[in-house]
Amino acid sequence: MSLSIKLHVTTSHLNYLNHHAKTNTNTSTSNIRTKPIYTSNPLIITTSRSRKMSLGCYGAPFIKSSLIEPDGGALVDLVVSESQRGPKILEAEALPKVKLTKIDIEWVHVISEGWASPLRGFMREDEYLQSLHFNALRLKGNGSLVNMSLPIVLAIDDQTKEKIGNSSNVGLLGPSGDCIAILRSIEIYKHNKEERIARTWGTIAAGLPYVEEAITPAGNWLLGGDLEVLKPIKYNDGLDNYRLSPKQLREEFDRREADAVFAFQLRNPVHNGHALLMNDTRKGLLEMGYKNPILLLHPLGGFTKADDVPLSVRMEQHSKVLEDGVLDPETTIVAIFPSPMHYAGPTEVQWHAKARINAGANFYIVGRDPAGMGHPTEKRDLYDPDHGKKVLSMAPGLEKLNILPFRVAAYDTSENKMAFFDPSRAKDFLFISGTKMRAYAKSGENPPDGFMCPNGWKVLLKYYESLQTEESPQQPAVLSA
Amino acid sequence: MSLSIKLHVTTSHLNYLNHHAKTNTNTSTSNIRTKPIYTSNPLIITTSRSRKMSLGCYGAPFIKSSLIEPDGGALVDLVVSESQRGPKILEAEALPKVKLTKIDIEWVHVISEGWASPLRGFMREDEYLQSLHFNALRLKGNGSLVNMSLPIVLAIDDQTKEKIGNSSNVGLLGPSGDCIAILRSIEIYKHNKEERIARTWGTIAAGLPYVEEAITPAGNWLLGGDLEVLKPIKYNDGLDNYRLSPKQLREEFDRREADAVFAFQLRNPVHNGHALLMNDTRKGLLEMGYKNPILLLHPLGGFTKADDVPLSVRMEQHSKVLEDGVLDPETTIVAIFPSPMHYAGPTEVQWHAKARINAGANFYIVGRDPAGMGHPTEKRDLYDPDHGKKVLSMAPGLEKLNILPFRVAAYDTSENKMAFFDPSRAKDFLFISGTKMRAYAKSGENPPDGFMCPNGWKVLLKYYESLQTEESPQQPAVLSA
Repeated sequence: MSLSIKLHVTTSHLNYLNHHAKTNTNTSTSNIRTKPIYTSNPLIITTSRSRKMSLGCYGAPFIKSSLIEPDGGALVDLVVSESQRGPKILEAEALPKVKLTKIDIEWVHVISEGWASPLRGFMREDEYLQSLHFNALRLKGNGSLVNMSLPIVLAIDDQTKEKIGNSSNVGLLGPSGDCIAILRSIEIYKHNKEERIARTWGTIAAGLPYVEEAITPAGNWLLGGDLEVLKPIKYNDGLDNYRLSPKQLREEFDRREADAVFAFQLRNPVHNGHALLMNDTRKGLLEMGYKNPILLLHPLGGFTKADDVPLSVRMEQHSKVLEDGVLDPETTIVAIFPSPMHYAGPTEVQWHAKARINAGANFYIVGRDPAGMGHPTEKRDLYDPDHGKKVLSMAPGLEKLNILPFRVAAYDTSENKMAFFDPSRAKDFLFISGTKMRAYAKSGENPPDGFMCPNGWKVLLKYYESLQTEESPQQPAVLSA
Repeated sequence: MSLSIKLHVTTSHLNYLNHHAKTNTNTSTSNIRTKPIYTSNPLIITTSRSRKMSLGCYGAPFIKSSLIEPDGGALVDLVVSESQRGPKILEAEALPKVKLTKIDIEWVHVISEGWASPLRGFMREDEYLQSLHFNALRLKGNGSLVNMSLPIVLAIDDQTKEKIGNSSNVGLLGPSGDCIAILRSIEIYKHNKEERIARTWGTIAAGLPYVEEAITPAGNWLLGGDLEVLKPIKYNDGLDNYRLSPKQLREEFDRREADAVFAFQLRNPVHNGHALLMNDTRKGLLEMGYKNPILLLHPLGGFTKADDVPLSVRMEQHSKVLEDGVLDPETTIVAIFPSPMHYAGPTEVQWHAKARINAGANFYIVGRDPAGMGHPTEKRDLYDPDHGKKVLSMAPGLEKLNILPFRVAAYDTSENKMAFFDPSRAKDFLFISGTKMRAYAKSGENPPDGFMCPNGWKVLLKYYESLQTEESPQQPAVLSA
């Protein structure tokens, strides 16, 4: 019973989320992983609010969604109009076909909505090489650079390459065999996996999650071209309404009359240390003279590694954080960033930031070891924890984005709460990593009081409990609409 | 008996080279690898020629060395003046010391003369990260980018780090323990070898020559800072007069009234295919309207892998190519590029091109698989042979350089000469790789007539013959002055 209504009036999911959270505290374990977080139409609340705000703007100075310009000057939107859909589907049926993986479809989603603007399809070789070597693409018009640190590519095998033959266009097939997109003016070039992995991750050690999932099993050719998506990508998992496109987010920031938007990328549950720095950032922006800074709390929704907390559980946890008042729903937007996760540290954090420029955020919070993980075969962090923010602050194409480096938060045992780390009394502080947090939850143990809001913690406990009592763990099942 | 006279009047080394070549065809095997190619003062010829050219310029429109601006606007020159030398040496003696390897000294040489302008020393972490991730450095003044694809870094071990302690400056020691430079306002940061290798070479396979020589045995810290070189770096191998600095080259281009300079980077003997394309490039430039295009034939003089032909042999071979009239001495300058070789393909070719911008070349010839080699553990080229020129044409900071991609030359069996490959009669062409060429020379066999000028070929034959009859092969001994 999930919703796939297209949200043109999207404002207060959070209001809805809070509402839902209050009425749904006894969700059973199986519900957490299979049912949508909300089950009624969020438009009821949303519509009235957005109308009110729209009206409130008439005659007043209206803050446009142009707090920051999308890369390339205009948001890319590659979903064909409804009137064109029929003929395009017919055309697609006659083309050679390429079957997409789940991650490929996540990329189709990302590209089609303009997160990767000005990219208009899977990369051809010139784009791939620029991304791999320079983490940036040169615009054809004025020669300026936009950031593009991850190769967004589509791999095919020998057999598929042969099937495509000399065709200029191909149809892209979803999991059920339906054609979801056309790729035009294609180019096929070699997929040197070793080089791609080494230059993207700075290692080729076995055990990199994205590599094992999406590169090692993939074909030895890459297929680039211009994308036309036949209809908006939906997952029918009850969370589609949180998957706001960059265009929708920009509209939402306008409706809220944001004069600053600060994005927080995450793939973990929100603890009070995160909340502290998000609230502290808002305070700082107010002190800088901004009147209405809006937080974009932007969990990553695509592929994550097996021991990460699944998206549906994280979304429920985030809802509790707002319900418990740790973050303010009036100044926060929760939406899902549809990209898959690479765990490629300083290289990936640029992508995370760049995509948020396209979504209209002009401030980006970056913490310790962004997009990092432990080295898969050595006992150390894969990346220097400080490199992410350093690289981000120097990356070509990100000059227009304000980078806000984190102050480190840790658990202050002298005050029993999360606080900014004070090196002059280092012994009072306890560092609780994501791994440690998951270990607490797995063992059913509680972290120190004040680490996370109680209802948020309960969501995690319930999830890990369910893993132990059920046979099909880790990933939530996908519901059909 | 080598020369270390500083060449302020440097023009016609080639005239000298030709002269010497004519009088020295019976050089014994041991001479090839231990004696300088020339043994008398090249200034005798040079001086008169450069005077003539200087005089010729009076009153006429004089073409400045500003055919292309050095990166950052001005050539870096880090050699202290003679008047400062004494006090600086005294100061250096009191500093903590860092012992340099042979390759470190090559880099000191490269940095001190401005090949890496605007870099003023071994990279600090912010420069290292920009180089590693973006192959470019952002200028502090106007924010524009200059190319810098290879990390130019100085590795130290734990013990040296401890010895340096909190000192802001260190002295850098040459092989005989003499202090050759001061590094100021130093910064020490981690040397993550795996990441450096993976991002620079696109592989971490065992057997990469520069890695085995300079990275694997190096320490786990990098030492950045501003360089002051106490006196010009000399090798006393009889070839120092060919080691023209970027400043000297620019002066030389001015003296010759060059209106275009096209650089040809090489680390192999020159065969007639190379010559064909250099001559063809000159023809093309004349057709474009340039009146006096000058070729900078610019063999790499630093570290090369063990099975490459040593510098002294290559220099003698190049002299024969000019003597035999395959290249025209009047429009060619032969000089040595002092950088060590990385064999890092598309990443390194950018460095090769960038350094030539600083030397005043505004055209750069790029061929198949530049700076490439076979994969050290797999049976394939390490890099796609086309990636070098593609990456070069898109690299940030190289926009002002004219990239001239090679047409492929091969041995045309229908005409018994090197010619541009014609795919319509592919079967007529024979491709003779560097490896194949070396195999011919090693076995004492002759390549097909017209592959290389006979006297040039003799130099190679003699070198490989000497390897078989002597015990200390590969590298020429270094002579003292």
